[in-house]
Amino acid sequence: MTELQIAESVTPKHIKEIAYKLGIPEEKLEYYGNTKAKLPLEGIDEKKVKQNTLILVTAMTPTPPGEGKTTTSIGLVDALNVLNKKAVVVLREPSLGPVFGIKGGAAGGGWSQVIPMVDINLHFTGDFHAIEKANNLLSALIENNIQSKTRSLGIDPRTVVWKRCMDMNDRGLRNIVAALGGKAGGVPRETGFNITAASEIMAILCLASDLEDLKERCGNIYIGDTWKGTPVYAKDLNAHGAMAVLLKDAIKPNLVQTLEGNPAIIHGGPFANIAQGTNSIVATKMGMSMRDYTVTEAGFGSDLGAEKFLNIKCRAAGISPKTIVLVATIRALKYHGGKSLKDITQEDVIALKKGLPNLERHIESLKSFGIPIVVSINAFKSDTDAEMQLVKEHCKTLGVPVALSYGWEQGGKGCVDLAEKVVQAANTCTQEFKPTYNLEDSIIGKMEKICRTIYGGDSVVLSDVAKAQLRKYEAMGYSDFPVCMAKTEKSFSDDKKHLGRPVGFDVHIREFELATGAGFIIPIAGNVLRMPGLPGIPAAEKITIDKDGTIEGLF
Amino acid sequence: MTELQIAESVTPKHIKEIAYKLGIPEEKLEYYGNTKAKLPLEGIDEKKVKQNTLILVTAMTPTPPGEGKTTTSIGLVDALNVLNKKAVVVLREPSLGPVFGIKGGAAGGGWSQVIPMVDINLHFTGDFHAIEKANNLLSALIENNIQSKTRSLGIDPRTVVWKRCMDMNDRGLRNIVAALGGKAGGVPRETGFNITAASEIMAILCLASDLEDLKERCGNIYIGDTWKGTPVYAKDLNAHGAMAVLLKDAIKPNLVQTLEGNPAIIHGGPFANIAQGTNSIVATKMGMSMRDYTVTEAGFGSDLGAEKFLNIKCRAAGISPKTIVLVATIRALKYHGGKSLKDITQEDVIALKKGLPNLERHIESLKSFGIPIVVSINAFKSDTDAEMQLVKEHCKTLGVPVALSYGWEQGGKGCVDLAEKVVQAANTCTQEFKPTYNLEDSIIGKMEKICRTIYGGDSVVLSDVAKAQLRKYEAMGYSDFPVCMAKTEKSFSDDKKHLGRPVGFDVHIREFELATGAGFIIPIAGNVLRMPGLPGIPAAEKITIDKDGTIEGLF
Repeated sequence: MTELQIAESVTPKHIKEIAYKLGIPEEKLEYYGNTKAKLPLEGIDEKKVKQNTLILVTAMTPTPPGEGKTTTSIGLVDALNVLNKKAVVVLREPSLGPVFGIKGGAAGGGWSQVIPMVDINLHFTGDFHAIEKANNLLSALIENNIQSKTRSLGIDPRTVVWKRCMDMNDRGLRNIVAALGGKAGGVPRETGFNITAASEIMAILCLASDLEDLKERCGNIYIGDTWKGTPVYAKDLNAHGAMAVLLKDAIKPNLVQTLEGNPAIIHGGPFANIAQGTNSIVATKMGMSMRDYTVTEAGFGSDLGAEKFLNIKCRAAGISPKTIVLVATIRALKYHGGKSLKDITQEDVIALKKGLPNLERHIESLKSFGIPIVVSINAFKSDTDAEMQLVKEHCKTLGVPVALSYGWEQGGKGCVDLAEKVVQAANTCTQEFKPTYNLEDSIIGKMEKICRTIYGGDSVVLSDVAKAQLRKYEAMGYSDFPVCMAKTEKSFSDDKKHLGRPVGFDVHIREFELATGAGFIIPIAGNVLRMPGLPGIPAAEKITIDKDGTIEGLF
Repeated sequence: MTELQIAESVTPKHIKEIAYKLGIPEEKLEYYGNTKAKLPLEGIDEKKVKQNTLILVTAMTPTPPGEGKTTTSIGLVDALNVLNKKAVVVLREPSLGPVFGIKGGAAGGGWSQVIPMVDINLHFTGDFHAIEKANNLLSALIENNIQSKTRSLGIDPRTVVWKRCMDMNDRGLRNIVAALGGKAGGVPRETGFNITAASEIMAILCLASDLEDLKERCGNIYIGDTWKGTPVYAKDLNAHGAMAVLLKDAIKPNLVQTLEGNPAIIHGGPFANIAQGTNSIVATKMGMSMRDYTVTEAGFGSDLGAEKFLNIKCRAAGISPKTIVLVATIRALKYHGGKSLKDITQEDVIALKKGLPNLERHIESLKSFGIPIVVSINAFKSDTDAEMQLVKEHCKTLGVPVALSYGWEQGGKGCVDLAEKVVQAANTCTQEFKPTYNLEDSIIGKMEKICRTIYGGDSVVLSDVAKAQLRKYEAMGYSDFPVCMAKTEKSFSDDKKHLGRPVGFDVHIREFELATGAGFIIPIAGNVLRMPGLPGIPAAEKITIDKDGTIEGLF
């Protein structure tokens, strides 16, 4: 059975039944069909948030198809419900870029999926579209102000850093020259598109406490300078009101269900390599307000998603997880031990042993936060007993509990061992997480602490462009921002070829982006791209639908 | 009261009550909240379509704010229901371009509106977004194929005519150079964006008979040539399956209601100056299947919307209106008589008299179709008795019935006179419309017939570029396509300054676009743009939302 066939083999409950479990009355729901609904923001209860047990799911350095954080998160929540714990999973919304690029959605897998999976992986409730429109309305207003004589702010077109965005892997939009075609076409300038998941508007939506805060943050977006060198913000263009109107529904979290009928909240979709990589604060707090256990994930490896989840999101929201689940797979460990991608389903204890330092480094990095850790081995049919045993023993020597998880094959009941170990670990957690850096540290100081404590590297090296940008942004008064690292997800270092546990490396910062609305600064490391391209044979080529509406090729 | 305050003063009925009036059972609806739903395509009944009385609402040459076709269409349907006729209005979806550009939505006005008007004017049910994504997925696949070595079709990048699209008035995207930044960024080439309303995908959605037809049409889109000169179609890129998946919900018409609780179907949103300008065939036929009277509108003046509604849409769908309502306003007539826009609310019988030839020319053009005509004067407070009397008498001498319509002020009861005259006229209609041209005519022949019969011009003049394109497209075998004229809406001619009834002019075709999926060829006349810009002071600047969700400045 394909992922899609499994997903469609289950008849979903009406979403009002799921909402009922969360204590949300029917009349407060905004339906999008019978199986999706938007939740009202007034559902957040800060007192309940404080009492909740928050579990973060992160992973070792991933192989290209990912190691199953979402699958594990869903399996864990279903298992907690099997154990009669009231639990909810809070996830990110998928981007169309990967859907049409590399085969693979972001709605879990096997018997640990959220449904309706086709809708979730396509337009869902339109949040990505709304974010894209708000982003691009600001672009159109900038372009118009540069062109217009009526209301000119005197923007120097060469300084405009605000980019357009599109939720599509389209390398042709990465670097463009816009506004050509003569006088009526605007003032020509170099610019480009980010993928929507990397838009500052996505970051704002995920960090905003409510619609008013979102509007204010939109107004605070820095877009470039005037000819005289004065910084220009979106509010100078009177853009933030209309942007907030476009986002009035997008800010509300979306309710769906797991295949086992447990509540799932899905909201916001920043990538963890080029953005903060975790779902919205309002979604997490909504989950925390309504259930005793809230399971959430942060994208890619712990060096990216978990670091930003804790240092940026948890710090801003005033929340702290009680346990961190670190997902690993036997096949990924072999990959990090030098096995080629096509051979990772063959037994190879030697490669596995060579790959363990990657897991080790993630455990070390996570220990710096002072929160209990549980390793979850996401089981695949190709794993052998000898391999399983090796990983289990290694974790034992490191003093970290380990569970074998069969969420893909068995759903919730395949993750009961994990759920029990997570509950046990959470009960031992007595403190809030310890951040990697203080906001008072310099921007360089913050990056260096992340580099050493989380990546296990030596130092941070800035390009000349980056140095000049940092001087400027510090002079503008933004030194106390947290940093949102943009770095390859394929290595602890900024070089995707350095698998396993790289040592003795520096992190090279090519340039900075300033996100004054989101409230962080983005150091861009190595050659990571904020607008991906499609692979040689895009997944889109195999996707189709017949006259009865039956979809094929989508997972 | 603003339009928005009026719209929000009425408590909408639950959409299932509206569906009930149409005979659609609750379980067939896909809800988008409580006041919007998607309708299943199986609701179309060709036998009922044949028996239905279809009314087309068109207008004289408009002033910038428009003359109230949508308001009249809604008022007329409410009035027909007052007269106990079972009637439904079928409209187009608004574009965000005008919403953020010039103040003014597309959901009617005053007491003749469709609700929920804010949603309808913003993201609605996401159809525009889906169209944009399908359009831009094809662009990304083209860019990727040019770049890729794995699966190259040998596309010559200089020949690619397929553009990206965005639902935004952003002049900076009209002409761009894309795919810069070196080897990883693609092969640099000139290209640009159309506004989404002008995308061929929009045209396809509005002409497709079902999802299968839509997929096939998407596959038939011509995108450019190989280095060897062979035409390349979307199906050569295996793009159409994934495009159809993106459009699987967008192809379903949307049900909402008028302020008086009558059914309104809103679907598709092509502009009439740069596209075919009428809602989808499936939406019109759905309305015709469910009620006795179906009122629909076609954008801008009758030279654009009505001409294309009849020659393209009705011909393709095998339907024919029984009456054409021609909307005029006293103030627009004065404008065409030389009164400046800011003075058109002052009484001026002389200017009015001078403007009447514009109305006269629309009546003459429409008479060529052989369908009964009713003139509807959309009343404004500034109109005087003397002015009203003059127009009424003039219509009488032309032998055309005329009604004064007070839809804005009074809703349905203000349009009863119009409704009665429409019913009367429709009862006299004994034949189907006579097309302006035959499909067997040459492309030039078709354009010349439109120019003479509809615009009242002399001839059609092609630029050298257009001549070369036409030779090529005819050689490719597309001579039997209908033509979808792209021309300014401000004049019968291709020069927007020629108000009133211009005579002795030629229509200049700058270039052609070939829409092999939609199945027509687009002659682009004069300097009409398929990606508009924002005005000096965009409406977006005044739009905002407060912490309670109250919106201001949106109409």
